[in-house]
Amino acid sequence: MEWHSWIGYLAACLTTLSFLPQAIKVITTRNTQGISGLMYVMFVCGLVLWLIYGLLIEDTAVSMANFLTLLFALPILVIKSRNG
Amino acid sequence: MEWHSWIGYLAACLTTLSFLPQAIKVITTRNTQGISGLMYVMFVCGLVLWLIYGLLIEDTAVSMANFLTLLFALPILVIKSRNG
Repeated sequence: MEWHSWIGYLAACLTTLSFLPQAIKVITTRNTQGISGLMYVMFVCGLVLWLIYGLLIEDTAVSMANFLTLLFALPILVIKSRNG
Repeated sequence: MEWHSWIGYLAACLTTLSFLPQAIKVITTRNTQGISGLMYVMFVCGLVLWLIYGLLIEDTAVSMANFLTLLFALPILVIKSRNG
């Protein structure tokens, strides 16, 4: 594997896993005050499309990364939509 | 262009532009209470690496999408780090 591929993998890990602390924070505190609901509506729709795209082009990295991010982003959207 | 490429482009537009309403909300209200600072530290680092990766592999779509997202995510990180 070429060295710059590692930069791509590290980038993918960071952007994917970054939603984990936000999900933990929202799940434990239920505080969604500063969070934009519209952001998470658009973001979750985008992730679902990325997942479909990854499956269509049979790219495991794209599918897996977006499936994982979806796991973290979905509870944020659900709790935000309940809190208003 | 194949039809499923459009799904990829739509997905990229949604996940990139989703940070615009969050950036507007944080810039106008300065309310960052529910937002995880750690999320934005990891996310911004990831975006910088994606941008470097896009430039290295000379992929304009990867570079542009991550540069745009960085424009939206950076003010959120700056305001969050000031608010604590």
